[in-house]
Amino acid sequence: MTINTERNARHAARMARKKAVIDAHIAEANIDTGIMILLTGNGKGKSSSAFGMVARAIGHGLKVGVVQFIKNRTDTGEEALLGKHCEWHVMGDGFTWETQNFEADKLKSEAAWAVAARMLNDASYDVVILDELTYCLSYKYLDKDIILKDLESRPEMQHVVVTGRAAVKELHEIADTVTVLNDEKHAYKAGIKAQKGLEW
Amino acid sequence: MTINTERNARHAARMARKKAVIDAHIAEANIDTGIMILLTGNGKGKSSSAFGMVARAIGHGLKVGVVQFIKNRTDTGEEALLGKHCEWHVMGDGFTWETQNFEADKLKSEAAWAVAARMLNDASYDVVILDELTYCLSYKYLDKDIILKDLESRPEMQHVVVTGRAAVKELHEIADTVTVLNDEKHAYKAGIKAQKGLEW
Repeated sequence: MTINTERNARHAARMARKKAVIDAHIAEANIDTGIMILLTGNGKGKSSSAFGMVARAIGHGLKVGVVQFIKNRTDTGEEALLGKHCEWHVMGDGFTWETQNFEADKLKSEAAWAVAARMLNDASYDVVILDELTYCLSYKYLDKDIILKDLESRPEMQHVVVTGRAAVKELHEIADTVTVLNDEKHAYKAGIKAQKGLEW
Repeated sequence: MTINTERNARHAARMARKKAVIDAHIAEANIDTGIMILLTGNGKGKSSSAFGMVARAIGHGLKVGVVQFIKNRTDTGEEALLGKHCEWHVMGDGFTWETQNFEADKLKSEAAWAVAARMLNDASYDVVILDELTYCLSYKYLDKDIILKDLESRPEMQHVVVTGRAAVKELHEIADTVTVLNDEKHAYKAGIKAQKGLEW
């Protein structure tokens, strides 16, 4: 054998062993059920990840509902494209330092939760996205017990994706998949403004 | 003043101070330029975040190109929806433990990079997505110096998004925004299989 052939043979043998291990793990993961995904942390990418899942779900012909709890702008790229293919509710009125009115924020959040709760009680929705919900709990706009109960009692096969910084510990506990997005570096801190098509 | 009115007034004053600080930061971030975003780490959400940005960019009428370096399946939800609105290239042949053939993987990666390099040399592309590129560098399928040079010499206003686990340190260095997605919990480890519409 040439050196190259020998190296390739060793590589193939090593990878065959790795494949056996990975295939066994995949075979073990055979439960089919609705899951809850929590995307939290202070890094860029939480909402865009949720919207990528919206695109995936729509691409498979699934029924998707989106509620945006804090955002109040309707000129976003995500809504322009994805909002054509699913139910999309922009129900926020901005962050609390924008509104400076706790009572009004609370009423807005409660109205948004009413829409979310309707979806979480309707098995025809395959995927429900609750974008920036975490803030409504950390700012105490919404009653945590009601939120957790509605999330946990949703239809068995329904997926739900929750985004936002600083999720309360109970959201970590009830989620099946939790990703914490850590901000290692952000263009914004180098003086670059939020870019159309990436950040909105 | 009632207790409630007083509490609301204190809240409003505190939030007005916070808004002044945040607005000053936003005013400082006034540079408009193409940025590079790196999404790495072992948590769920890297590719879906990139695809959410594809949706955003398409929604704003921007021109987007996508190259998938490892994935070889073309039945994904993301391609079904987003592939209708942009240039989408699935150019991988699976992870190295699937193929068990280093030389073939290297040739596939080089062919994929040729497509990526063409886009990175064409200012008509507003956003270029290099999905799972990181593996081609950590597995040494591609020459790191060429990749870094092509990324850095791209058109000034072009955005590029790179995804994948274990990005080499040079990718961290040249990126403007780096998010590290940490896997706190994953449904897969609890025996739940990859769910259509969320993970593919």
